[in-house]
Amino acid sequence: MALDRTKTALILVDVQKAFLEWEAGGMRRNNPDALANIARLLAAFRREDMAVFHVRHASREAGSALRPEKPGYAPIDDAREIADEPVIVKHVNSSFIGTDLEKQLRARGFSTLAIAGITINHCVETTTRMAGNLGFDARLVSDACYTFDRTGFDGRIESAESIHAMTLSNLNSEFATIETTDSLLAALNVSAAA
Amino acid sequence: MALDRTKTALILVDVQKAFLEWEAGGMRRNNPDALANIARLLAAFRREDMAVFHVRHASREAGSALRPEKPGYAPIDDAREIADEPVIVKHVNSSFIGTDLEKQLRARGFSTLAIAGITINHCVETTTRMAGNLGFDARLVSDACYTFDRTGFDGRIESAESIHAMTLSNLNSEFATIETTDSLLAALNVSAAA
Repeated sequence: MALDRTKTALILVDVQKAFLEWEAGGMRRNNPDALANIARLLAAFRREDMAVFHVRHASREAGSALRPEKPGYAPIDDAREIADEPVIVKHVNSSFIGTDLEKQLRARGFSTLAIAGITINHCVETTTRMAGNLGFDARLVSDACYTFDRTGFDGRIESAESIHAMTLSNLNSEFATIETTDSLLAALNVSAAA
Repeated sequence: MALDRTKTALILVDVQKAFLEWEAGGMRRNNPDALANIARLLAAFRREDMAVFHVRHASREAGSALRPEKPGYAPIDDAREIADEPVIVKHVNSSFIGTDLEKQLRARGFSTLAIAGITINHCVETTTRMAGNLGFDARLVSDACYTFDRTGFDGRIESAESIHAMTLSNLNSEFATIETTDSLLAALNVSAAA
């Protein structure tokens, strides 16, 4: 099903260097191609003059690598904003709480949101749940997201892959349409070349 | 850690007969004691004159058993509201979107929300993620929630137990404190008797 390019915005959630630090520190993640896919999305949206919103997490937690004064707050190079692309600063998981993202999207008439970023099960998932519940046509770009292994509440290790899969299972059709970078760009009738 | 009874509200999400119909129709669920635990929570909150909010899902989807004109819309007997307990009607997963729940809670000074209901991974989880992000001290009462087996996006069956566990893993400490009925009532210094 074709998407209207003029009504679609790309929302990049928390593509910030802190997550590279986590990885460098030994945390295991999934989806090795996620940053390349984010770069492909960005390149395609820019080439076709479509809207891009960058969401950045400014943690208020002591010791967080995402505190705004820390180097980890900076965007990952592949995802740095250019020109007049809006940067939305948030302090909680949802990109819609404590920000004017919804207002900006509605003012500019965007009804479809292509959502990608880090981590899929926390900030991306919370943003996507709210996007769907707020009435947006939410498209979660699965291969442009990743997460990390995590110790579950029961003490067992949940692999990044199983966490990722459960987010897709929980969101699919209830809150969002699950896309890949290629399927999203195809629906926008945009060349998927890198 | 003791909780202040005067600042704590019980939020029961979608404890409605449609889910009994799903079960009667052959869908498999977890946590067989969940409704008994909801009944214990309700009895304790009422006995101690603490606040209870009922959230009810009024579906707008064609064919949904939760449409307001359907018998499945009615609360499950164990969870029927009494006296002046507020009933919040919602149309999406989050109890905070399209409702005045947040306004009512803030007006009455509630800062801790004990959240329970059905299903843990959809409406309960979305409500809990938002509660935490909105600044409430969210307490997810795990043994007073349940869900159903579900076919994942990858086509594999996810068991209700693994879905439930992943919700706890994703929400724990990031959005909420995970409680049991007993641990919550103990923190409120309330007798846990049935």
